[in-house]
Amino acid sequence: MDKNHQMWSDLGMDLDKHDLLCAALPGAYGDVFLTQENRPQGMDYFNMVAADIHGIRPAELIQAQKEGRKVIGTFCVFVPDEVIIAANGIVTGLCGGSQFWVPEGEKVLPANTCPLIKASVGARLGRTCPYFRIADMFVGETTCDGKKKAYEILSEDVKMHIMHLPHGKRPQDIAAWDKEILDFVKVMEDFSGNKIDIDKLNQAIHIVNEKRKALQRLYNCRKNSCVPISGRDVLLIMQIAFFDDPERLTAQVNSLCEELEKRIKEDVSIAPKNAPRILITGTPMAVPNWKMHNIVETSGGIVVCEENCTGTRYFTNTVKENNKTMEEAASALTERYFNNIHCACFTPNPERIDDILRLAKEYQVDGILNVNLKFCNLYATENYFVERRLKEEGYKVLSLETDYEDSDAEQLRTRVSAFLEMIEANK
Amino acid sequence: MDKNHQMWSDLGMDLDKHDLLCAALPGAYGDVFLTQENRPQGMDYFNMVAADIHGIRPAELIQAQKEGRKVIGTFCVFVPDEVIIAANGIVTGLCGGSQFWVPEGEKVLPANTCPLIKASVGARLGRTCPYFRIADMFVGETTCDGKKKAYEILSEDVKMHIMHLPHGKRPQDIAAWDKEILDFVKVMEDFSGNKIDIDKLNQAIHIVNEKRKALQRLYNCRKNSCVPISGRDVLLIMQIAFFDDPERLTAQVNSLCEELEKRIKEDVSIAPKNAPRILITGTPMAVPNWKMHNIVETSGGIVVCEENCTGTRYFTNTVKENNKTMEEAASALTERYFNNIHCACFTPNPERIDDILRLAKEYQVDGILNVNLKFCNLYATENYFVERRLKEEGYKVLSLETDYEDSDAEQLRTRVSAFLEMIEANK
Repeated sequence: MDKNHQMWSDLGMDLDKHDLLCAALPGAYGDVFLTQENRPQGMDYFNMVAADIHGIRPAELIQAQKEGRKVIGTFCVFVPDEVIIAANGIVTGLCGGSQFWVPEGEKVLPANTCPLIKASVGARLGRTCPYFRIADMFVGETTCDGKKKAYEILSEDVKMHIMHLPHGKRPQDIAAWDKEILDFVKVMEDFSGNKIDIDKLNQAIHIVNEKRKALQRLYNCRKNSCVPISGRDVLLIMQIAFFDDPERLTAQVNSLCEELEKRIKEDVSIAPKNAPRILITGTPMAVPNWKMHNIVETSGGIVVCEENCTGTRYFTNTVKENNKTMEEAASALTERYFNNIHCACFTPNPERIDDILRLAKEYQVDGILNVNLKFCNLYATENYFVERRLKEEGYKVLSLETDYEDSDAEQLRTRVSAFLEMIEANK
Repeated sequence: MDKNHQMWSDLGMDLDKHDLLCAALPGAYGDVFLTQENRPQGMDYFNMVAADIHGIRPAELIQAQKEGRKVIGTFCVFVPDEVIIAANGIVTGLCGGSQFWVPEGEKVLPANTCPLIKASVGARLGRTCPYFRIADMFVGETTCDGKKKAYEILSEDVKMHIMHLPHGKRPQDIAAWDKEILDFVKVMEDFSGNKIDIDKLNQAIHIVNEKRKALQRLYNCRKNSCVPISGRDVLLIMQIAFFDDPERLTAQVNSLCEELEKRIKEDVSIAPKNAPRILITGTPMAVPNWKMHNIVETSGGIVVCEENCTGTRYFTNTVKENNKTMEEAASALTERYFNNIHCACFTPNPERIDDILRLAKEYQVDGILNVNLKFCNLYATENYFVERRLKEEGYKVLSLETDYEDSDAEQLRTRVSAFLEMIEANK
């Protein structure tokens, strides 16, 4: 038995089933990523991570656990990494981006649930995700009906803490989120046995801010008319950012950015100058969900920005540093995580449309793809306002609903191609 | 033009379209209700109300508006009627129980939305519901993703106030709901121009309590082995209770109960003694949604209790009377409306299962039908726990998902018949 299989076996994973995933991923990865021409050399690190995504990082996490650190699995960009890091914990993303995990989720969840939730629950219950086996505790949030209730099922199997996300952003909601954060501090202290003082929390804020700044720098490279990196590659980096050690990721992204900034100076673009520049907005794209980016970028378009939770919402704004008290730090975290993340779970949520419009301008966008996962009622309903306003502002918009199955890929490709041709014809 | 058509025209309704509904309802009503044998005479009042449900009560509401009273439309049992009544306002239910309104709703909402929400929005936007035209203001709540976001669309067309329902029942959630109620008092005061003092609020609490006691008395009549009234008739009364004047309804229900109590003494049952006694739990059944009750009761069963928002949740418990301060009254309202309503929107929600088990015993139930509207993710997911626990406790359970279309009626009838036969075989 090789080292990875020994580890997966020790984690109580379903080896036979997981091997099916391991057998399929390299081909899918090769098709989407390795066929690209003129990729930045800085992608080598991310290729390496992706190639052994259930091996290298899980082994690191297990090693950290042996040294007494706690690993905390999170599902959503509302959960503040800083609190976990300040308790000497490690944050990890979780599996949830492939149809592979959906059938197992459907054993306990309604079929009319979004594939991200079904896949996440299925990955845990089917024992086919090392991260879901490793994490010592999971932190959920009440962002949507589907997750809120699915966490009840998960909590029968794992230790969970649920953060209650208010429905709006009124003053009392902001105060309530402050309290959720301070309660979470207490939960993490109790669970880890490590007291979180303001110095540790400020340090953690700094670490995560540096990561955000690196990702902001990466996204800034995409604003130029010369596009030095594909949307696919950026999406992969974002997906890996949820799993990787934050300081190492920061260094790798900054080093990649140096290469990209050089490319911009030298006008080395990975896409033809007239390729339609696409902004994608909507629901998150968990690894290995590369479907839409792949379709756009193999149909003549180039994705230059993602207004979603695996895009700008993950790194926009930083948290105020050097806070004097825990209450001040909680407020600073709320300011960044709550006030400034414009998820469709909030009512009303007009700021999201303002964000899309601002980003569309900054990234010199030619068209907007509004891509939502099937059965995500929040985003599907909000789409009524999003599509109307974007069209009023003169943008070309295509709204698509999809899940993790391949069966609609050709139909999506046809619609995306027609959309890109329409943009090119009007350019 | 007859009086009703004149009124509907004055309300800006789409007369041609609404006439289609008016033409279809009497036949449907006759089939479901008037074919019953040995109905209590006390149902005459409810027959009369149902026969002219878009005529009599709307005319009363318009008359009240002329006298300066405000009519407030509500969608959900969490909104406290008492606050509206204390401001000299009138509470009205709204249309939402028929497929007739769904296509208009689907023009603005995702098809994957529950039919109750699509029908409600469609009834307003299609101008085919007098209540949706009459109400001066609408009070929504953040119970589920679908409603939360649909209210954003409705608020472009009507004046709305949204109450933010917390996700759980922790101490801070209870305090938050207290505040929602006190904020709602202020909203109603401002909107009606009437100050709400503690005396007015206590009076309103008394009025609604009397209505609850009458409905409790009605339901108590169904606990007997002699069943003096059909489930269909009780469902109709419950549906009308959302629309009718509360004091008149109380009197009518009490008078009906005298007849039913006499029937019990004389052992006059509308169902054979061996008919399987069914409890229905799940999502609400808005008028004219009589589908499941009709199927059960024309397949040999008798519905003796509904654990849902158009059933026990509407009247269980009373609100403490004679409160000294507004804060004390708000707490009393929270105690009844928040702590004691066990909706699937809360996480976790084990109390609902306790309720079902208690009711199943009290109503001497032979089988439980767990009936959820399609695309209601909250109830569908919670069903995982409900069905498991009820079966563990030895109950026969059938879970069904349905919408407002007739297309699945025969399939449902087959499944329900098999369920009832299985119960009878084991009796």
